[in-house]
Amino acid sequence: MNAIAHLMRPESVAVIGASSDPSKTSGRPVAYLKKHGFAGTVYPVNPRYEAIEGLTCYADVASLPAAPDVGIVLLGAERAHAAVAELAKRGTRAAIVLASGYAETGAQGAQRQAQLLEAAGSMRLLGPNTIGLVNLTDRITLSASGALETDGFRAGSIGVVSQSGGILGALLSRAAACGIGLSKLVSTSNEADLDMADFIDYLVDDDATSVIALYMEAIRHPEKFRAAALRAAQAGKPVVAFKIGRSESGARSAVSHTGALAGSDRMYDALFRQTGVIRAATFADLLDLPNALSIGRRPAGKRVAILTSTGGAGTLVADSLGVAGFETPAPDDATAACLRALQTGDHAVLDRNPIDVTLAGLQPELLRGAIRTLLDSPSYDAVAVIVGSSGLAMPDLMAGAIRDSLPGTNKPVVAYVSPHAPAITRLLNGEGVPAFTSPESATSAIEAMWRYGQTLHTGRSGPTPPARVHFDQSELPSGSLDEAQAKALFARFGVPSVREVVVSDAAQAEDAARTFGEKVVLKMLSNTVTHKSDIGGVAVGVPGGSVGARLNRMRDDVETATGVPVRAFLIQEMVTGGVEMILGLHRDPLGTAVLLGMGGVTAELIKDTSMRMLDPECGLSHEEALELIRELKTFPLLDGFRGRPRADIDALASAIVAFARMATELGSRLIEAEINPIFALPQGQGVRAADGVAVIGQTFAEVPQPGH
Amino acid sequence: MNAIAHLMRPESVAVIGASSDPSKTSGRPVAYLKKHGFAGTVYPVNPRYEAIEGLTCYADVASLPAAPDVGIVLLGAERAHAAVAELAKRGTRAAIVLASGYAETGAQGAQRQAQLLEAAGSMRLLGPNTIGLVNLTDRITLSASGALETDGFRAGSIGVVSQSGGILGALLSRAAACGIGLSKLVSTSNEADLDMADFIDYLVDDDATSVIALYMEAIRHPEKFRAAALRAAQAGKPVVAFKIGRSESGARSAVSHTGALAGSDRMYDALFRQTGVIRAATFADLLDLPNALSIGRRPAGKRVAILTSTGGAGTLVADSLGVAGFETPAPDDATAACLRALQTGDHAVLDRNPIDVTLAGLQPELLRGAIRTLLDSPSYDAVAVIVGSSGLAMPDLMAGAIRDSLPGTNKPVVAYVSPHAPAITRLLNGEGVPAFTSPESATSAIEAMWRYGQTLHTGRSGPTPPARVHFDQSELPSGSLDEAQAKALFARFGVPSVREVVVSDAAQAEDAARTFGEKVVLKMLSNTVTHKSDIGGVAVGVPGGSVGARLNRMRDDVETATGVPVRAFLIQEMVTGGVEMILGLHRDPLGTAVLLGMGGVTAELIKDTSMRMLDPECGLSHEEALELIRELKTFPLLDGFRGRPRADIDALASAIVAFARMATELGSRLIEAEINPIFALPQGQGVRAADGVAVIGQTFAEVPQPGH
Repeated sequence: MNAIAHLMRPESVAVIGASSDPSKTSGRPVAYLKKHGFAGTVYPVNPRYEAIEGLTCYADVASLPAAPDVGIVLLGAERAHAAVAELAKRGTRAAIVLASGYAETGAQGAQRQAQLLEAAGSMRLLGPNTIGLVNLTDRITLSASGALETDGFRAGSIGVVSQSGGILGALLSRAAACGIGLSKLVSTSNEADLDMADFIDYLVDDDATSVIALYMEAIRHPEKFRAAALRAAQAGKPVVAFKIGRSESGARSAVSHTGALAGSDRMYDALFRQTGVIRAATFADLLDLPNALSIGRRPAGKRVAILTSTGGAGTLVADSLGVAGFETPAPDDATAACLRALQTGDHAVLDRNPIDVTLAGLQPELLRGAIRTLLDSPSYDAVAVIVGSSGLAMPDLMAGAIRDSLPGTNKPVVAYVSPHAPAITRLLNGEGVPAFTSPESATSAIEAMWRYGQTLHTGRSGPTPPARVHFDQSELPSGSLDEAQAKALFARFGVPSVREVVVSDAAQAEDAARTFGEKVVLKMLSNTVTHKSDIGGVAVGVPGGSVGARLNRMRDDVETATGVPVRAFLIQEMVTGGVEMILGLHRDPLGTAVLLGMGGVTAELIKDTSMRMLDPECGLSHEEALELIRELKTFPLLDGFRGRPRADIDALASAIVAFARMATELGSRLIEAEINPIFALPQGQGVRAADGVAVIGQTFAEVPQPGH
Repeated sequence: MNAIAHLMRPESVAVIGASSDPSKTSGRPVAYLKKHGFAGTVYPVNPRYEAIEGLTCYADVASLPAAPDVGIVLLGAERAHAAVAELAKRGTRAAIVLASGYAETGAQGAQRQAQLLEAAGSMRLLGPNTIGLVNLTDRITLSASGALETDGFRAGSIGVVSQSGGILGALLSRAAACGIGLSKLVSTSNEADLDMADFIDYLVDDDATSVIALYMEAIRHPEKFRAAALRAAQAGKPVVAFKIGRSESGARSAVSHTGALAGSDRMYDALFRQTGVIRAATFADLLDLPNALSIGRRPAGKRVAILTSTGGAGTLVADSLGVAGFETPAPDDATAACLRALQTGDHAVLDRNPIDVTLAGLQPELLRGAIRTLLDSPSYDAVAVIVGSSGLAMPDLMAGAIRDSLPGTNKPVVAYVSPHAPAITRLLNGEGVPAFTSPESATSAIEAMWRYGQTLHTGRSGPTPPARVHFDQSELPSGSLDEAQAKALFARFGVPSVREVVVSDAAQAEDAARTFGEKVVLKMLSNTVTHKSDIGGVAVGVPGGSVGARLNRMRDDVETATGVPVRAFLIQEMVTGGVEMILGLHRDPLGTAVLLGMGGVTAELIKDTSMRMLDPECGLSHEEALELIRELKTFPLLDGFRGRPRADIDALASAIVAFARMATELGSRLIEAEINPIFALPQGQGVRAADGVAVIGQTFAEVPQPGH
């Protein structure tokens, strides 16, 4: 058993700074351990008491009769440090530190946190600023959360890791209220030592856990998180995350709360997508989606039967499903005939969906028959049953009927509870029928089940590493490259460039232009000017014969504008008939991503871009690059929209893979890289990088982050 | 007192088909009337009983000692008709018919519904297929909703009109669970007679009601609804609507449920916006937004202070507010100083927002001080208080502190309840502190309060009627117009067109071209071919000198392609330097709207359009037309984006107003009209319609609806 396993399931717990007053925060842990049935040994430690809650109270850690598996430290930040050191000295496996006043408060607190970590030595640390953890599987509460005041917690298979202690309490209490079963809850908060990824890893191996729910403010160790999330995916345990910091304002307050740096929200989206993490759109979904996923059933398609005795609520759910792209088709003839044979009420509407059995349908026999018929029907992939006000007087009606229908099918059955009916909701959830109180959550849950099933079917594998490019980094120029150097670098990795020649005067220019057709592009060459066209340094469509004169005029214009002599120019072939795009790198604390964007003023206006994080080893697979392209809102512009020629999408994907390969190969030395524009030519004609920038440094850290 | 007032507040009620078994639907109304304290007279009517619930039971309506104010008819569809006729004969003011099997089931049911309406004569009818109504203000329950099984309904100021009986029950029971006070609830369902608009009208005049909540499947009488919604706006009573039928699938099931035709969802959006109706995005918002609006406080700006004792939940709310565009700025220096003077906990973070008073802040005195400080601060327009798990043991703590702080300020204070804590939620709502259990609802509610306040400030008036165009409809050609006729018609109403000449041969064409500059546009003229360019009937940028030859070639091409001779052509001036747009009409059962779209392939791809419904009298005001333009996602293309010339937005607005004027003036005779493209030229240069279609009929009804 490793230290985390001891932390989650200790046989003995010391509570340092325990109070005998259970109304105080420091009085809670001992009281809760007793109340919720901890079977191991509890050692209250406090020099001011002889006994607490009937247990011998010790003056200090040194006086304990044995080294506890876990120490809960309730002392303030000033004194916690000493207690942690003492626990470490006794050989305690892990300590939980509740005090605030550490990294979340600023620089001084961060220093205090570093000292705390040092004091822990090889002992593992949860917190500081944590509310602790709750192991419902084994009825072990190592927490001061006020949510533990109440009872009625249901042990189940959803493991929760929260970077906020308050949210841990909220989830604990909300799950209990609707009968959703949880396995373990951990508040990692400041994550001085143990972080979210450590507990994901633990939960992946925990037999009692089948789904993992995360409340996240910021990921401190992206690579560790990535590895843990991928392990969960391989183990078939869905991970659902609610991530705040979506807005600037939220991000700021996340920083102040946990002292972590929040990466940009779109990077999180990319990371989640690429590690199979399902992002919860609302806070309620953070319980509702895991609840649905925990039953282990996955709809094979998007056709949902809605069974109702109250038209309105059925329609409400159908509408919500429809908005999310699900179908609610009418029963096929055979199914309709089976339903009619059940003899429901006079005006029951059985040939439509929602299938409205009316009030007469509220007889258990009839309800069972209808549910079975719908589950057997080849027309449906899932069944949603509506609980209406009429069911209020018969709480067990639905739960019983559905429970009897579940064996013999793998299709999911969910319930939507229309009135306020907590007893029915609890009953349904207890019977393995995910029950929802909002139509939107019911829909999101069905969608999550479907999506997760799809990932399993496609058996999505990691990116295939493209062939390594043999590249001697010592050859690499450093600093800001000029356009010709940048494109030459990109070309080394396999990104094709427009044909071009570097020239220094009018005569050379006219010579060069002869090989490039009727018209050419003329540009000044510089590694310091980034916006060449703003100062007259770009001329497009110059007739070959007049390019020399044009070069001389450009030299004069630029020198007048900048006062700096221009020594070199580029003569490029003109590219026509292609779709203009942009391809760039984005780096932030979460990792490195490639960003693909559609060019043109309208696409720019709607910020039509897509993004993928790079695997530090493999970069990006061809398949991922194709996804990146297809994700663009204006993808049809590349795909034959309104009679346009189809673009060479395959070549574009290859260029993206090559660009990504360059980023992983050069690693932190490549500070900035962007191709703008890159032209996607018609099918079979490939792509051409027409302009580019690259900045090469010694290490990533020494240079400020690039801003795009 | 009119019939609706009698219906809502009867002194006597006959219950036709009452059963003595309260577990049956037909046993509920009498039982509920007694249970919930109806003070008037109840007449059960059923030949099979002597008495029900201790009340004399009558054999039929004719035997009643007096005409009841209201009759509740519980008989099936086969027998309801006779009972309604008898009630009408006795002079009953209004009847409520619960039976289903009417218009919602198909053609036969619709006929049955027509008979029912005929039987009612001058007596008003609620239903059929309704669950009835509940008047909580006066404790009158004329309903069989199973939601009335429970107790604890709070009378308040939110009036509810629902087109679904099941949803009425859901709202009643959900409001009770969280202590939200309702005034009246009516289920209008099939709306054979009384409809949603009738009850909106009633609630506008009802002193007990300050906010109106609507659950809507389809509006059957758009003009009546529009008038009622505008009356509510004038009375300062916010109307919040949750409208289903947002997806095709939902729309279909709405039809099957109420037998109404659903208009397209975007038309509803336009109607709501133009009548000041707030659209609820989620079902929960249908209670949460009215709850917030019912306190009558409106934030003057978008700055929210968040006061918390539990970091996580405060951050959650801040994040949600941030996503919605609200600000959560840190306290100004004076406010921070006041907060520090309150002496909260050691590590309390008072110079940031969320303002975290930590657990120490859970003392009533301190909490009151902090709330008052934030309400007094000039930095904030509203205060959100977080209730954490630690408050579970002190349910009154927050409610008491906030209640004491409310007098002396008009700023709204709302609460977010983080754990499951229904008692606290009920207490807060009871004290006039809107309390929310989801961060998203708290945000939507604050947003709704802010938005409603803004509408009040701007004192938005109806559209100013543009000058009438004197137009003799007898001059109007009929049928499908050709391009020249269509643009001439548009020009009559004030939409400027490109200069053009109709020609019939090459010589005329070359003559005409001489007056139009170097190059011209040549088009075939036809009132039958709608996609001219597909068959080679459009040539752009034709040099004036060669237009004759080009005309002859076009004639040959088109005649070869269609086999129909081309007799006329258009020579048009070339328009350059303008932004290409589309302007069209959209008609559906809800009314007529103008649709403005950005041209160009990318904008078309993202369907960048905006829409406004026309006032049947006034069309559209210039201000509304400007809004329509500014709502386009790619509006910056008209507004100088990236150094482009600013377009003549004012002239574009005038053209839209003129186009709308044409639609209202011609009314149902104008079946279809579209200008595609209309060019918005640079500022000062106006707009030009460059192509157009119009279809003129005798009446709107005789021609199938146009499809765009």
